[in-house]
Amino acid sequence: MSDNFRHHHLISIEQLDARDVAQILDLAETFFEVSRRPVRKVPALRGKTLINLFYEASTRTRTSFELAGKRLSADVININTQVSSVTKGETLQDTCKTLQAMQPDVLVVRHSASGAPNYMVNKLKCSVVNAGDGAHEHPTQALLDAFVMRRAHGKLQGLKVAIIGDISHSRVARSNALLLNLFGAEVRFCGPRTLMPCEAEKLGVKVFNRLEPALEGVDVIYLLRIQLERLHGGAPLPSLREYSQTFGVSQRHLSLAAPKAIVMHPGPMNRGVEINPVLADSERSSVLDQVEAGVAIRMAVLYLLVSGKSVESVREAVAAVA
Amino acid sequence: MSDNFRHHHLISIEQLDARDVAQILDLAETFFEVSRRPVRKVPALRGKTLINLFYEASTRTRTSFELAGKRLSADVININTQVSSVTKGETLQDTCKTLQAMQPDVLVVRHSASGAPNYMVNKLKCSVVNAGDGAHEHPTQALLDAFVMRRAHGKLQGLKVAIIGDISHSRVARSNALLLNLFGAEVRFCGPRTLMPCEAEKLGVKVFNRLEPALEGVDVIYLLRIQLERLHGGAPLPSLREYSQTFGVSQRHLSLAAPKAIVMHPGPMNRGVEINPVLADSERSSVLDQVEAGVAIRMAVLYLLVSGKSVESVREAVAAVA
Amino acid sequence: MSDNFRHHHLISIEQLDARDVAQILDLAETFFEVSRRPVRKVPALRGKTLINLFYEASTRTRTSFELAGKRLSADVININTQVSSVTKGETLQDTCKTLQAMQPDVLVVRHSASGAPNYMVNKLKCSVVNAGDGAHEHPTQALLDAFVMRRAHGKLQGLKVAIIGDISHSRVARSNALLLNLFGAEVRFCGPRTLMPCEAEKLGVKVFNRLEPALEGVDVIYLLRIQLERLHGGAPLPSLREYSQTFGVSQRHLSLAAPKAIVMHPGPMNRGVEINPVLADSERSSVLDQVEAGVAIRMAVLYLLVSGKSVESVREAVAAVA
Repeated sequence: MSDNFRHHHLISIEQLDARDVAQILDLAETFFEVSRRPVRKVPALRGKTLINLFYEASTRTRTSFELAGKRLSADVININTQVSSVTKGETLQDTCKTLQAMQPDVLVVRHSASGAPNYMVNKLKCSVVNAGDGAHEHPTQALLDAFVMRRAHGKLQGLKVAIIGDISHSRVARSNALLLNLFGAEVRFCGPRTLMPCEAEKLGVKVFNRLEPALEGVDVIYLLRIQLERLHGGAPLPSLREYSQTFGVSQRHLSLAAPKAIVMHPGPMNRGVEINPVLADSERSSVLDQVEAGVAIRMAVLYLLVSGKSVESVREAVAAVA
Repeated sequence: MSDNFRHHHLISIEQLDARDVAQILDLAETFFEVSRRPVRKVPALRGKTLINLFYEASTRTRTSFELAGKRLSADVININTQVSSVTKGETLQDTCKTLQAMQPDVLVVRHSASGAPNYMVNKLKCSVVNAGDGAHEHPTQALLDAFVMRRAHGKLQGLKVAIIGDISHSRVARSNALLLNLFGAEVRFCGPRTLMPCEAEKLGVKVFNRLEPALEGVDVIYLLRIQLERLHGGAPLPSLREYSQTFGVSQRHLSLAAPKAIVMHPGPMNRGVEINPVLADSERSSVLDQVEAGVAIRMAVLYLLVSGKSVESVREAVAAVA
Repeated sequence: MSDNFRHHHLISIEQLDARDVAQILDLAETFFEVSRRPVRKVPALRGKTLINLFYEASTRTRTSFELAGKRLSADVININTQVSSVTKGETLQDTCKTLQAMQPDVLVVRHSASGAPNYMVNKLKCSVVNAGDGAHEHPTQALLDAFVMRRAHGKLQGLKVAIIGDISHSRVARSNALLLNLFGAEVRFCGPRTLMPCEAEKLGVKVFNRLEPALEGVDVIYLLRIQLERLHGGAPLPSLREYSQTFGVSQRHLSLAAPKAIVMHPGPMNRGVEINPVLADSERSSVLDQVEAGVAIRMAVLYLLVSGKSVESVREAVAAVA
């Protein structure tokens, strides 16, 4: 594993192979420790510029990337287009070219339109990281989830993972399925028929419309957030209460899963809807491990894309004092 | 004074004794000079992470903490929940746990609910600083006010301080009274009966409903901001004009106070309402000293909480070049 | 050119002479290279504080100043008054004094009122940079434009520059005309009569109400942004379509201009209104050069104002590794 990272952008899990993923996860282990040091900072990306360009609000993901950049000593600029005029009468293409002219090293973008980051790649010389695009992909989420699963179970190969909820609107479900497929894990999608995409089976997953069989013997119970804003007007869900009774997961469901099964959720959780509050706070919940892994994964991704270097070179960078 | 600071959080003045306060004020003297240097920065908190979590807008206080963090070389992350989704369907407990998982060293929080920062302490391992919670406390404001009073009068012991305005909604009045009590200062509360809390006297203060007797012989005239937004609908104030005529302070009132009395205000001022514009700009006004002291006090608080070290160790840190 | 920079503020092009401008442009050449280095950062303003105070939204300009400050190693604080309470019941004077008390080294301000930055100069000890005030001036825009013109044509002396669009509301047109006048360039204003200020000719420019004669033989075609928000209610423009047909510039217009003429625009562009999309993306367009020059010019301005040093001293600073 002494070769350099072969990607300049991270747009999708679809672009990666198992070795790329392993390279990122291995490096994230190193950065995971950096955030637990008394001095949570390395000089690896000193003098580099990271722009966080968020067309959708997401404090959690933006904060995670901002922290990752700062702990690598990069200069970080936040652009929240909901409170800014960056796109006032400006095409996405012009925004890209304008930002490129400021000579950033990496642009992290979240956009409501599937494919927007991929479009931007062609307009930019700097690295682009997709921080979530429509219902398409959210690759750093899938990578951090894989990091947590691997830590909990020692490997990804052969894991059984049930992903439960609003599958059709979920870039998280999609990216996770693609990543887990690379390692021969068994992925199950479970949710109401109205929230299950027709092409789910093309992803190589098993589809369930009832919770209990989906959970049988799984190593990971992965709960998606129900978007409450989808419940108003022409909603595909009858009511929160009915959803919760049919697909909400609580501790009694754990007996269906494998003995050491963990419970995951990308956050923010709707306690009492998709997840029972007692379960959310139990030892089986890996929700906070996911958040912590998020910073480490993003440090690894930013480092590999921007430096283009190998994992070995990182070891030196991390040993240095910022 | 070679011992380490004995607190991990700063939630209230109520938690401090006179010695704690003196330790903070003494250290702030050192940091006060740092902000006046050509290089306004020391490496004391390099590699540490400060998160500013503001549930209420406050550019003044947020900027002061942000500057304090940056002048200590910490990495600073701002989260303004008014323009963010951090709490979208998320409990305060989950927000705390999520942020904790990102391994910050200190969380500065402003919240409209009294007690919110205290609740958060139990959910977080990092230090918590209360930057104002409802009508409860605003400890760094009281500390910076004490810093200014001590500089102006040489000591806090025996000072006479009149605090004038909307006492019942004021965390500033409360924190100041608690701090001044520790040093045996005489605190007077003065304001309309509708804005005076019933339990004021339990704080050990003297209550006045007329301005003139309250000002008699005081060393400090402390004016609170009238919240103009409280004047609409069921207002406890008849009109701004009447308030101004009855409780507004101008230069002619200075003759009632002690010869070297200073005038203070936490800002932003409503000129012509609680304070006469000529007085606000006069030499007797310490309003800008308060702002400058604010950065120094916050540097001292952040340093003591995060490093857990003694005042002596700071001297070394401050001598170092960032 | 070994003398120190003689200004403490940059409020207008009107305050500068040709030598001041040349000093800034020369220094910007140096910083232009810094942003293209692998390590895009110099320690020149380490320990200095820059406050970006924007009363009007402008992600583009704010980002450019923020990057410039960070690449000089300054600490940068953003205050966006549209989402903040900085001025809640506070006069501009009090905001200035409050910020001054926090000991910044330079305040960058954008304000909708012409003259606001000039007013602030008298209330502040730190340097002030006008980032655009009403219809008055936008000096760093004119400087970056001059940088691009000088790079393209080798000099500013004798250039013919046509500025086209809504001249009457444009601080960009005004600052550019003032700067170009210093070098004996020929400036032409062109636009609908309803958008042409009566006093245009006092600026020493030639006024045109038809596009073709205005473009004849020019070295620079400078297109202003049509503010779409001005088109609702009592609009001085009949329609976008008519504007575009009469004053929109496309590649066919290039034949009227000098052989090596360049096309400029301060951004964001309304493609298909003031500029044809094919032209915007052609080799003749210098729009992205302007953006890149913007960071370099702002680094130069911040450095000269804050350090007060000479261009020679900068050479050393830039050679140092941040």
